Amino acid sequence: MKKKIILQPVRGMRDFLPNDMIKRNFIFDIIKETYENYGFLPFETPAIEYLDVLTAKSGPEIVRQIYSFEDKGGRKVGLRFELTISLARVVASNPTLPKPFKRYCISRVWRYEEPQAGRYREFWQADADIIGVNSRIADVEVIAAARTALIRLGFKNFEIRVNSRKLLDALAVISGIEEEEAKLNFFRAIDKIEKIGENGVREELYRMGISSGNINKILDFIKIRGPLPSMLPKIEDVLDYDIKSANEGIADLKQMNEFGKSYGIANEMIFDMSLARGLDYYTGPVFEIISKDMRIGSIAGGGRYDTLIQILGGAPTPAVGIALGVERIFEIMKKTNMFPKEITNIVQVYIATSDKSLIMKAIEIAEILRNSRINVDIDLKGRQLKRNLEYANKYGIPIVIIVGKKEIEQNSVIVRDMKKREQEEVKISNLATYITTKIKQRGFENERE
Amino acid sequence: MKKKIILQPVRGMRDFLPNDMIKRNFIFDIIKETYENYGFLPFETPAIEYLDVLTAKSGPEIVRQIYSFEDKGGRKVGLRFELTISLARVVASNPTLPKPFKRYCISRVWRYEEPQAGRYREFWQADADIIGVNSRIADVEVIAAARTALIRLGFKNFEIRVNSRKLLDALAVISGIEEEEAKLNFFRAIDKIEKIGENGVREELYRMGISSGNINKILDFIKIRGPLPSMLPKIEDVLDYDIKSANEGIADLKQMNEFGKSYGIANEMIFDMSLARGLDYYTGPVFEIISKDMRIGSIAGGGRYDTLIQILGGAPTPAVGIALGVERIFEIMKKTNMFPKEITNIVQVYIATSDKSLIMKAIEIAEILRNSRINVDIDLKGRQLKRNLEYANKYGIPIVIIVGKKEIEQNSVIVRDMKKREQEEVKISNLATYITTKIKQRGFENERE
Repeated sequence: MKKKIILQPVRGMRDFLPNDMIKRNFIFDIIKETYENYGFLPFETPAIEYLDVLTAKSGPEIVRQIYSFEDKGGRKVGLRFELTISLARVVASNPTLPKPFKRYCISRVWRYEEPQAGRYREFWQADADIIGVNSRIADVEVIAAARTALIRLGFKNFEIRVNSRKLLDALAVISGIEEEEAKLNFFRAIDKIEKIGENGVREELYRMGISSGNINKILDFIKIRGPLPSMLPKIEDVLDYDIKSANEGIADLKQMNEFGKSYGIANEMIFDMSLARGLDYYTGPVFEIISKDMRIGSIAGGGRYDTLIQILGGAPTPAVGIALGVERIFEIMKKTNMFPKEITNIVQVYIATSDKSLIMKAIEIAEILRNSRINVDIDLKGRQLKRNLEYANKYGIPIVIIVGKKEIEQNSVIVRDMKKREQEEVKISNLATYITTKIKQRGFENERE
Repeated sequence: MKKKIILQPVRGMRDFLPNDMIKRNFIFDIIKETYENYGFLPFETPAIEYLDVLTAKSGPEIVRQIYSFEDKGGRKVGLRFELTISLARVVASNPTLPKPFKRYCISRVWRYEEPQAGRYREFWQADADIIGVNSRIADVEVIAAARTALIRLGFKNFEIRVNSRKLLDALAVISGIEEEEAKLNFFRAIDKIEKIGENGVREELYRMGISSGNINKILDFIKIRGPLPSMLPKIEDVLDYDIKSANEGIADLKQMNEFGKSYGIANEMIFDMSLARGLDYYTGPVFEIISKDMRIGSIAGGGRYDTLIQILGGAPTPAVGIALGVERIFEIMKKTNMFPKEITNIVQVYIATSDKSLIMKAIEIAEILRNSRINVDIDLKGRQLKRNLEYANKYGIPIVIIVGKKEIEQNSVIVRDMKKREQEEVKISNLATYITTKIKQRGFENERE
């Protein structure tokens, strides 16, 4: 090997050292617990899918972003760019799967996009989906689950936005757009309003051949925005066109409002007629959650996709889901110091010796404590005691056990509380209980702080 | 879309429905806790790496198995086939990383191999590595961590095999093999003994140009096998050649035996001179764990790789690690019914109504319980009560709450214990406490069973 190897991760991808990974696991664990509290079950699919599956119902922009290649058997495959299509594939191919089917999946996906703050070429999503329920109770349930996860993570200042693709469909019809692909282009144009502004959308709509009059009407419509309960009469008023999709869209929102009351979130749902969401497979309600503390796009997004499973070859099956955007959540929590300080202390006990020859005793003691499910590290390098204490201090390890000749002769060790700077001689026979109690006490202290 | 879409996962890859995924999470959680008990910290790297990194120190067989492709930016990349090389890359590129660096990583990797029992093209590994420790204490520590994880998973009948590449190197030298690449071929031939048998190895060695006399000597050597403490004198005896690598290999094993005593595993370590392990980057001790309940290859494997970080362009850094093979562990545990029965009950409470109109009340009650971190599912389909009870029974949900008109007027609900077939009326204000207590009691029952 003479060639110089590039040691950086591939552009847009990241290495997670323990300090970051501990924080990410904190996020994963809370989302997992919350989704399970809402009755979602764990589920996983391969990272590699047939390209036909990935592109079955995706807009041209997404298709361009897929990491696609031929495998060594000549199969045209790609890395998944989101988690929903694989779920739809599994449902389509397992007609006997009991419904409702509620699953969550916290896993990685890939998109070849230009990297920027909170956007990477490899990133993690945390999805919760309900398959087989037509009622909008399912739509509100996935929103409520994602909202609870965010609250538990410490988010206080966020906004839940809702709309229905049916209303946007009605808007397209009113503007003279009837053809399916043209409608999808229309949705994609609307979806860009936060990125390219009102004038940008105006230009896109103009290029689609929509008249200035209709463009003005559309732009007026998509400014309609406010808490769902109080907006419902207004929506009914302005969309009084007797178009099927308008009536269905209004029915969507009314149902979501009713269920929203029981979930205690009706007033938190902000109707926003400019909300379209980027994916092509949505058919009804769409929703997203944005953080008001840091504007880096949505931290959750989802919607109803009642035709996707059928498009893939399955039976017609109603479906709705939401994805929490792990990367943006991670970014915001890091930047605004939302992680509890004590989570970084995975190692609870560090064992040092006063003399290298005592390492064998140190190992025995480590194994006793590990057996009691205490996280223990040993000095593997045979360092001086002073350096070991500095090390434990630097990395915030709360307890150091010092194995010394004199104490070992009495079957004891010295246990040093690094925070209180106190130490005590403890019998080895009593050590596991002593440490477990100490850790529990520290836990209470942390909560009280 | 007229084309018929293939709904199966790509060959060699798998969908994990909840029933399997719950079991896999059981495995992941125990390994994670055990590795953390041993002071390893979480760590993650991208699935996609530069091909140069992946192939820096891999045998030709592995290189053929890499899913490699050009990304849209023309970069020659591949999917990682194991987790160690990425770790070595990170260490090589971060010279200030504090040592010892102990990390674990439980994640997926890909190899284009012929699928068979316990072998897939996408699979999970659970690695624990110690970087920066020259002493064989680190080698024994990673073995002890993997062993403890297996015991906690319920494995009783397994064997830990150890050897040192240094001894195999000495064997190569004795047989007249001096050149580096020829030595690697020699190790690869030895490694195949369980697959191709003694005659297979004989043929491979013959093809390498080794004399019949030397082949016989090699085959005699690699039959040396037995508990490490009692084998040490024998190894010293037969390898009395005064070759540097022989002396170093013997020193490796003596040190491992000494540390093994403190970890309480010396007698469990079976010296096996035929053990080579397939990866090219090992430099010292190698080891694997096999299950004696089901012969599907090793369930853990690892070794010391003191040159890999330098080969990638970093400073010379000693390193050792072990990987638990999640797929084979999963396969054995499934086939031999090692999973505790109660783990599949993620949903603890199912809420049904006696009347569809009470769904709003059901949601409110679900939200109260979810707030107390209880896993709750609701009847989202408005089914008949009888069908709901059948459903809960079928899926082993232990508690059903029935929201009835009469009880709701008294601010109560009926709580039905599905196992005891008993039910009780409980005030909603007291419901979360009541259910939490009930779940804890059930937990104790399960343990006692």
